[in-house]
Amino acid sequence: MLSKIKPLSLRKVRIEDAFWSARLETNRTVTLPDVYQKCKKTGRIDAFKLNWKPPKPNQPHVFWDSDVAKWVEAASASLATHPDTKLEKLLNGVIDLIVNAQQPDGYLNVHFTVVEPEKRWSNLRDNHELYCAGHLMEAAVAHYEATGKGDFLDAMCRCADHIDTVFGRGKGKKRGYPGHEEIELALVKLYRATGERRYLDLGRYFVDERGRRPLYFDIEARARGKKPYEYGASHQAHLPVRDQKTADGHAVRAMYLYCAMADVAAETGDKTLLAACKRLWKNVTHRRMYITGGIGSSKDGERFTTDYDLPNETAYAETCAAIGLVFWAHRMLHLEPDGRYADVMERALYNGVLSGVSLDGSKFFYVNPLTVHPKGFRFMYAAYFEPVRQEWFGTSCCPTNLARLLASLERYVYSQGKNEIYVHLYVAGAAEFDLAGSKVRLTQKTQYPWKEKVRLIVRPEKPAEFTVALRIPGWCRAASLKVNGRAVRLARITKKGYAKIKRLWKSGDTVELTLPMPIEQIQANPNVRMNNGKVALQRGPVVYCLEEIDNGPNLSEISLPADATLRARYDKDLLGGVTVITAKARRRDDSLWKDCLYQSASSKTKVVNIRAIPYYAWCNRKPGEMLVWIREG
Amino acid sequence: MLSKIKPLSLRKVRIEDAFWSARLETNRTVTLPDVYQKCKKTGRIDAFKLNWKPPKPNQPHVFWDSDVAKWVEAASASLATHPDTKLEKLLNGVIDLIVNAQQPDGYLNVHFTVVEPEKRWSNLRDNHELYCAGHLMEAAVAHYEATGKGDFLDAMCRCADHIDTVFGRGKGKKRGYPGHEEIELALVKLYRATGERRYLDLGRYFVDERGRRPLYFDIEARARGKKPYEYGASHQAHLPVRDQKTADGHAVRAMYLYCAMADVAAETGDKTLLAACKRLWKNVTHRRMYITGGIGSSKDGERFTTDYDLPNETAYAETCAAIGLVFWAHRMLHLEPDGRYADVMERALYNGVLSGVSLDGSKFFYVNPLTVHPKGFRFMYAAYFEPVRQEWFGTSCCPTNLARLLASLERYVYSQGKNEIYVHLYVAGAAEFDLAGSKVRLTQKTQYPWKEKVRLIVRPEKPAEFTVALRIPGWCRAASLKVNGRAVRLARITKKGYAKIKRLWKSGDTVELTLPMPIEQIQANPNVRMNNGKVALQRGPVVYCLEEIDNGPNLSEISLPADATLRARYDKDLLGGVTVITAKARRRDDSLWKDCLYQSASSKTKVVNIRAIPYYAWCNRKPGEMLVWIREG
Repeated sequence: MLSKIKPLSLRKVRIEDAFWSARLETNRTVTLPDVYQKCKKTGRIDAFKLNWKPPKPNQPHVFWDSDVAKWVEAASASLATHPDTKLEKLLNGVIDLIVNAQQPDGYLNVHFTVVEPEKRWSNLRDNHELYCAGHLMEAAVAHYEATGKGDFLDAMCRCADHIDTVFGRGKGKKRGYPGHEEIELALVKLYRATGERRYLDLGRYFVDERGRRPLYFDIEARARGKKPYEYGASHQAHLPVRDQKTADGHAVRAMYLYCAMADVAAETGDKTLLAACKRLWKNVTHRRMYITGGIGSSKDGERFTTDYDLPNETAYAETCAAIGLVFWAHRMLHLEPDGRYADVMERALYNGVLSGVSLDGSKFFYVNPLTVHPKGFRFMYAAYFEPVRQEWFGTSCCPTNLARLLASLERYVYSQGKNEIYVHLYVAGAAEFDLAGSKVRLTQKTQYPWKEKVRLIVRPEKPAEFTVALRIPGWCRAASLKVNGRAVRLARITKKGYAKIKRLWKSGDTVELTLPMPIEQIQANPNVRMNNGKVALQRGPVVYCLEEIDNGPNLSEISLPADATLRARYDKDLLGGVTVITAKARRRDDSLWKDCLYQSASSKTKVVNIRAIPYYAWCNRKPGEMLVWIREG
Repeated sequence: MLSKIKPLSLRKVRIEDAFWSARLETNRTVTLPDVYQKCKKTGRIDAFKLNWKPPKPNQPHVFWDSDVAKWVEAASASLATHPDTKLEKLLNGVIDLIVNAQQPDGYLNVHFTVVEPEKRWSNLRDNHELYCAGHLMEAAVAHYEATGKGDFLDAMCRCADHIDTVFGRGKGKKRGYPGHEEIELALVKLYRATGERRYLDLGRYFVDERGRRPLYFDIEARARGKKPYEYGASHQAHLPVRDQKTADGHAVRAMYLYCAMADVAAETGDKTLLAACKRLWKNVTHRRMYITGGIGSSKDGERFTTDYDLPNETAYAETCAAIGLVFWAHRMLHLEPDGRYADVMERALYNGVLSGVSLDGSKFFYVNPLTVHPKGFRFMYAAYFEPVRQEWFGTSCCPTNLARLLASLERYVYSQGKNEIYVHLYVAGAAEFDLAGSKVRLTQKTQYPWKEKVRLIVRPEKPAEFTVALRIPGWCRAASLKVNGRAVRLARITKKGYAKIKRLWKSGDTVELTLPMPIEQIQANPNVRMNNGKVALQRGPVVYCLEEIDNGPNLSEISLPADATLRARYDKDLLGGVTVITAKARRRDDSLWKDCLYQSASSKTKVVNIRAIPYYAWCNRKPGEMLVWIREG
């Protein structure tokens, strides 16, 4: 066991937060039912009845099971914090369908039971059998944890047992691993829920086997009579995982793999795996991540490209990839409590994840560019990706992924270690910790991310000595702290991004953390060629953008002088309540232009007022242009 | 006949030019043999033997015939200006193969004779039968004009006769037209060479039928048992051509269609077609053209997108599309002698066309972006498009297209009208005109585009009154003119971009045109969102770029103050002799950056010397980054 700290279970945390509560409520009351309806309407749920036959419509797709699984996971997490008998009944019905679809040998996959049964396990690279099984396992664990009921969990254990008979290094077993990672981390969850070591071993096998030569994807391609070809980097199979030094290929797959690597490292104590995770973490967060926490810059292959290759308008930055980054950051944070991990987790949550869902919870972005011009957007991403959020997609991984992350946001706020309480995120509410057998209740009051004050009231059952570790966000350069009204020198007690207050706590002790949030003009590393000469506005953890509705069309005409006075003002009526940033900026004087494309340069500009809103909230009014990186000057 | 002026035949023009002669010599001695060898080696030439059978390698592709045809056209043009018995023999051999491959009914297409004979004319949208036939017709006309031999021309007449029995409005005929335009303009050429009106009528039919409802591409898809789908805009078939107001779809196809529309308008006097051409011209050149004359900004579909959507790094700007723009501009110029057309022709020739071939004539660019970062480039265009010129491509339209354009560059320099001589391009050499039965010899001396002086010596057989019309380039704002040493007020005699000197010319009369070439900082229309805050350097018709080899890596760090002193200097030893531009500029100070992606803004810069070279000459030394649009400031 490498992990130093553990997350709290969902039930131990309550969120009552000016920023998040409304979003979570919307997730529960709008997104969750909507996503269910979409799964129902598209045939994804009824597919588990296994009665599809050609030429019926809605032929079950190879990845359909995963969408239902993520809904089950989300609904289960929701039940854990918000009991709801109607939802529970609905959920039970879906789980019955899933469990009944399991084959006698434990195999469970709709497509390869009713559409192409002869192709079971024949193309791990392109199909999604192990991926779907993994999501169903995650769902089963979530359902068990939320309800205590074991039927789904038992079924998925049988499924894992079956998979264990098919894959591995034993004689007669296939030396395969999934083209889309997911089952690896799910098997570790299954191990944690059941204590069955074989599941951890199988998950570890999938991680360890990946990328070894001869490449399994080639072997199985040959067995299908197909040309073997090196396609490994897209699937993180170009090298054994411990030899991978840069984040390559499909970004969501990479995140799920890295999560599994962190999980296996945590459970087995494998430091070579931890070292690989840390190298990859550095590569992603120091070279390949948008300021929004979006990752995977290329549409082609939904993948990472090269260091510093972060185009704004063609950014893919799939919502699922940012969610995957949150998952991974959370795991790294528990392996090594360091604010750098929580900083990235926060960056993604408040920006590139949240941008994926509309404020009303009913519409989703699959891709999250940092500049959008509606006309160009349509051409870049084809009709499938409109420059407005959509209710659903053909490949609809993002809506259900958002639903399950938001339904379990409680998990990300705190952790507890041996005699330590960790506060990672500043989200108002309360939590209950067990420290050496003694209960400690912690209440958090804050208007974060809009306001700079955070108040924590600590209530141990009886006075006790332990540590409260408060994250000092990386974006904050002048944090200050008081305990029971008395200032504490932060530098002295802050280590790896956490201020550690060790003392004898008595009920009612109050910690007051101040995180000044000046508006910052942020530059990108000069190697990010797209952003030279540009700045992004950030205040606290929130990245801002300009929208056409506030600033008129042709946003790239606008430039911001380095000495511009930037003002922040909270507007409770705008976009569910946001702090907006205003400034005087310049705009190119286009009155000089007739209907021609090129002419001699003029430096004429006019002064304009600009208004920036949080990036996550864009495209919730009239659709139009959007821009994060503003020209300097 | 709408045309007001006519180009001179190749043989009437001689080029002896400091800029072009070396390029044309290289085209003749390197490109032409290389391209032949590639056609030979890849099986394109031997395919005409019709002896391919599975499982032989080199299965003839649907568009292979066109590559050979363009080589034949290039070789023929070369023979017209530079007799070469060895080349002529080689050419005769290829033509024999082609002519022998013709079927008894006149049909001529390798793929649909040996690979899929049953699919003849079954998929005009995706296959290239009519396209290949068109290129063979153009080749046949060029061969006939160069050599006077009629065998190939006769064969292609029989082919056209056959096509005339298959397509058209008559009973039992298919109401089809090609998915890739080309045959339309070729049929007009065939008509002009033979006087056979049916060829013009068939070409006009193809133009007129295009885009009418019901859509032929749907009809034929249904006949093949395929789903009919609206795919028209990619093929310029979304609307009847006279209703098309914006340049849409595949850029090369669009150019060839617009050429044909201009040709048909010229021959039939159809003013509705001319009006459509002029609308489309305005859309392309005022809204959808790079400063290099490159067109078709999107890789997906190699196509036009929307107005002002001109991304630099992802620019497709296929070499063939810029060549097509030259073809179209040349035709428009003859319908309406107006310098605007010649300006665009010149812009494309000196920039976006010439960039397509290496200085040594052996390597080619298929795409011509305006910013290149080698790592990003590879990811944008996949392995197929490396950030260096290639010897050949799978789809290898560009090398042969370059070869045929350069082999017939003579055609673009002058035109003659009724008692008028037009000088469109400033290219040293000589030409011979027939004005009302009297020969006029014109000699042009210039170091254009590097120097501003052009001397023209006019030598009529006997003194005669006629007009010499000299193009005053759109980029030039202070041209001046002397006739026999005496200044002439240009404003008084300049109309639509041409200075018209009407006088009684005597042998030896000398015109001296001065075209001052200050280095200009050019801005793009503010609607081109990618270029706000940026300038391009242009001197005369030549667009400049920064290359990594001259300016170090990470070119986007560089910015150019509006008041920078820009110096031009001719360097005879660089890149075959080019005028370079130097200046003091600024560069972001990256010493402030550790290994992180985002931090607070700093405006610290350092002064650096920059050197810009002509865009067309980039990537002829060490490959690396390239940048046309430089940040201001």
